[in-house]
Amino acid sequence: MAGSREDFSAWMAACGVRAEQALARLLPAQDTEPRTLHGAMRYAVLGGGKRVRPMLTYAAGEACAASGAGSEVALDAAAAAVELIHAYSLVHDDMPCMDDDVLRRGRPTVHVEFGQATALLVGDALQALAFEALAGMPIAPGLTVQAVQVLSTAAGSLGMAGGQAIDLASVGKPLNRDELEAMHRLKTGALLRAGAALGGIVVGASSVQRAALDGYAQAVGLAFQVVDDILDVTADSARLGKTAGKDAAADKPTYVSILGLDEARTLAEQLRQAAHEAIAPLGAGGARLAALADFIVLRDR
Amino acid sequence: MAGSREDFSAWMAACGVRAEQALARLLPAQDTEPRTLHGAMRYAVLGGGKRVRPMLTYAAGEACAASGAGSEVALDAAAAAVELIHAYSLVHDDMPCMDDDVLRRGRPTVHVEFGQATALLVGDALQALAFEALAGMPIAPGLTVQAVQVLSTAAGSLGMAGGQAIDLASVGKPLNRDELEAMHRLKTGALLRAGAALGGIVVGASSVQRAALDGYAQAVGLAFQVVDDILDVTADSARLGKTAGKDAAADKPTYVSILGLDEARTLAEQLRQAAHEAIAPLGAGGARLAALADFIVLRDR
Repeated sequence: MAGSREDFSAWMAACGVRAEQALARLLPAQDTEPRTLHGAMRYAVLGGGKRVRPMLTYAAGEACAASGAGSEVALDAAAAAVELIHAYSLVHDDMPCMDDDVLRRGRPTVHVEFGQATALLVGDALQALAFEALAGMPIAPGLTVQAVQVLSTAAGSLGMAGGQAIDLASVGKPLNRDELEAMHRLKTGALLRAGAALGGIVVGASSVQRAALDGYAQAVGLAFQVVDDILDVTADSARLGKTAGKDAAADKPTYVSILGLDEARTLAEQLRQAAHEAIAPLGAGGARLAALADFIVLRDR
Repeated sequence: MAGSREDFSAWMAACGVRAEQALARLLPAQDTEPRTLHGAMRYAVLGGGKRVRPMLTYAAGEACAASGAGSEVALDAAAAAVELIHAYSLVHDDMPCMDDDVLRRGRPTVHVEFGQATALLVGDALQALAFEALAGMPIAPGLTVQAVQVLSTAAGSLGMAGGQAIDLASVGKPLNRDELEAMHRLKTGALLRAGAALGGIVVGASSVQRAALDGYAQAVGLAFQVVDDILDVTADSARLGKTAGKDAAADKPTYVSILGLDEARTLAEQLRQAAHEAIAPLGAGGARLAALADFIVLRDR
C-alpha cells in the first residue's frame, strides 16, 4: 500500500498526543497539594517516552471494534493506566538500590531531580493512579473488573515485578536462552501483553479476537526486548535517551550476549512475522497492529 | 452488657485468624518462582500486625448486613486488600531513603532481611496484589468497581502516598494542629477510612449506612494517630514491636508535641465518643464498631 508508512507515522504521532493528553488529565495538577509529589509525578510521566503500550491499547481497540459507546474515553483511560504502570516501574527501576541510573528519556531520573524518598512515593502513587484510571472507565462494570484483573496480574509478582526480581537475581549468572526468555516474558512482556489485552477488553472484543491479540502481543513483547538488547549495543546514549551499553557493562545476560548480534536480529524478524500471523483472524482491522509490530522491530531507539 | 469485652476479644482474635488466612491464600506460595520475592512478600505480610484495617472491614460488613451471597468471601478479599496496601506502605516506609527503620513487628524490616532492591519490589508487588484481590471478589461487578475506586484513591497521591509526602516535607517544621491533622487524614486516615468503606460496599450497604461508616472511620482514623503519638512517648520498643520515641527523636511534629500529653489524651477520648455517635444510624448492628473504636483508643501498643 503506497503511503501506508506515512499514514502509520501520522497515527503514531496522534496516539502519542492522545496518550499524553489522557495522562495529563488523569494526573493531579502541579499546584494540587502535595505539590512536590504531584510535580514529580508529572515530571516522571509527561513529555517523553515512546508510548508503545498506549499504542498497543489503541491499535488493539481499533482492530476489534470500529466504535462503541464510551469506548473512546475508556481506551484513553486504559492506555493511560498501562503507561502509568510502565512509568512507575521506570522510576523505581532507576533508583540507586536497583539500576542506579541517572538519565532517562534524556533527562535526570526522578530520584536525581527530587530525591529518593519522593521517587519512591512517585512510583507508589502512579501505580495507585493506574487502577483509579481503570475504575473510572465509562463501560460495563464487568469489563472494568476484567481490566483490573489483567493489569494487576501483569504488574504483580507473577508479572512485571516478578520479572524484575528474576532480573535482579540473574546479574553475573549464565542464563540460557529459555531462562532469559522466561525472565523477559514477565519483566517487559507481561505489561505489553496487558496493553493489547486492555484495548480488546474495553471495546468488548470476542474471545477469538482476544486470543488473536494475545498471540500477537506475546510475539511483539519478546521482539521488543530482543530489539532493546540489540539497540543497547548498537545505538548511542543520546539517541536512546538513556545510558547505552549499560546491560553489557553490568554483566547482565541479553539476547545479544547469548545469541550474538546476527542471530538476535534473525530472531527479531521471526517474531515480527509471528506477530503478523497471529492477527490473521482480525482481518483488515489488524493493519495497524501489523504496522506497529514492524515499527517495534525496525525502530532505531 | 456483661461479658461484652470478653466477646470482643474473641471476635478480634477470630478476625486476626481470618485475615491471616485470607492473606496467606492470596499471596503466592513460597516455592512459586520467583521464590525470593514471594518469600519476602509473605515475610512482610504474615505473622504479625494488629490487623486494624481488616477488623474495620469485617466490623463494617457485619454492621450493614447480617449475611449476603458471596459477601463473606468478598469481605475476606477486601480485608486482605486493605491490609496489603498497609503492609506495602510499611515496607517502603522502613527503607533507608524514608524512615530508615530496622525493626518492625518485632523482626528485622524487609530491606534488612532481603536487601533494598527486593524490599522495593515487595512493596510494588503487594500493591498490585491488593487490586487483584478486589478484582476477584464474587460480588456484583458494579460493587467491585466501587471498591477499586475507593482503595486506589485512598492509597494514591490524594490519600496515603500524599500524606507520606507531606510527612516527609514536615520534618523539622513547626506544623500547627490543623496542618498536622490534614497530614494524618491522608497518611493513615485515608486507608483506615477505606477499610471501613470497603466493608460497607462489599455487602451492598445503603447510602445512609455508608455515610455512618464514613463519619465513624474519620473519627477512628484520627484517634488511631493521636493514640500512636501518645504510645510513641509512653510505651517501650519491645511492647510496640517497633522503635519507640522515633518521631520525637526525628523532630517530627506529633499530637503530643503540639498539644501535650494530657490534651492529646482528651482529644483521643473525644474522638472515641464521636465515633460512637456517628454509628447511631446503624443501631444494634454497630456494636462491634463501637467496641473497635474503644479498642483503638484504649490499646497499649
